[in-house]
Amino acid sequence: MAETLEPIRRLADMFRRIDGIGSKSALRMAYCVMNFSEEDANEFAEAILSAKRDVHLCARCRNLTTGELCNICEDEDRDHTTICVVEAPRDVLAIEKMHAYHGVYQVLHGALSPSRHITPEHLCLDEFFERVKNEKIKEVILATNSTVEGETTAMYIARKLSGSGVKISRIANGVPVGGDLEYTDEITLQRALEGRYEMN
Amino acid sequence: MAETLEPIRRLADMFRRIDGIGSKSALRMAYCVMNFSEEDANEFAEAILSAKRDVHLCARCRNLTTGELCNICEDEDRDHTTICVVEAPRDVLAIEKMHAYHGVYQVLHGALSPSRHITPEHLCLDEFFERVKNEKIKEVILATNSTVEGETTAMYIARKLSGSGVKISRIANGVPVGGDLEYTDEITLQRALEGRYEMN
Repeated sequence: MAETLEPIRRLADMFRRIDGIGSKSALRMAYCVMNFSEEDANEFAEAILSAKRDVHLCARCRNLTTGELCNICEDEDRDHTTICVVEAPRDVLAIEKMHAYHGVYQVLHGALSPSRHITPEHLCLDEFFERVKNEKIKEVILATNSTVEGETTAMYIARKLSGSGVKISRIANGVPVGGDLEYTDEITLQRALEGRYEMN
Repeated sequence: MAETLEPIRRLADMFRRIDGIGSKSALRMAYCVMNFSEEDANEFAEAILSAKRDVHLCARCRNLTTGELCNICEDEDRDHTTICVVEAPRDVLAIEKMHAYHGVYQVLHGALSPSRHITPEHLCLDEFFERVKNEKIKEVILATNSTVEGETTAMYIARKLSGSGVKISRIANGVPVGGDLEYTDEITLQRALEGRYEMN
């Protein structure tokens, strides 16, 4: 019987460690790399090593950076009194793409999850609370995901900061723009109703 | 503005070279690799290098192998007088998974495509015709894809081998098992009708 060759299986195993890649996709991707030229394969391997070597966390907000501070923290034109709290560096990119937010960020690198034993110590939370205490922060926008873990994390932070005099807000839930009510789940619809605003 | 960091963008570019990976997925995957441990990242890079270094083409059928011949060509219990012609090594795996085919293979590494300038010289075809001439081949099963390119390739081979005394067959088109007639496209349905067989 023909079985997948060991080096290909080993490469597929590495692709599988990427979130959202199942075993079939991983194998397909490994076979595809076999079609790469020698040069491209070397470049791919080097790209992985260099990404790990050259990219690290911003000393202030824990976003990814190649320098000491990320370019958002270094930008003096931004509003350094407003911190948007997100779970992952990718969330920073998503928000930046809007070109509508001018504050700074705090990346937590995860969300609280009792079931997966992720407690506050596992996240970049202590340093965030220090920031809020030491920098002149006016508003904290909690932009963790709208999942159980994201909500738990937002509630944890809101409770910790209550009484600190800092304004704390949470991004809204609602019907996605362009979305049909018919296809919106009940909980989202309920939140959309609760969050209704006056139009006159 | 926050932009994707150069090392991450470079890694995402490599992921994009994998068939079927778009720019959004590639970026997501690159960010995911940033969460790998140093050790895992090294293992990933090494897996790519080793797959390219240790895997090469079988001297006889052009399937992938770590040895001189692939394990199918080396297996004396297999029927070496029947060759199944496929486009890619992955197709060999797909057929092997059935556990129903006991012949050997010829991997073409592509299919004829005039529009993409892929001519017979680009495929492992000459050596295949040599095999058919020199080995005592009884049947050639054309299992190239049911695409325009695959059909073109099958027709090319069939024409080349006509008059050689070798039996030439083509895998059947039809309704996929478990498939609804309602959702089957017209051409497939037409082929299914043409290929109908008696049941009594």
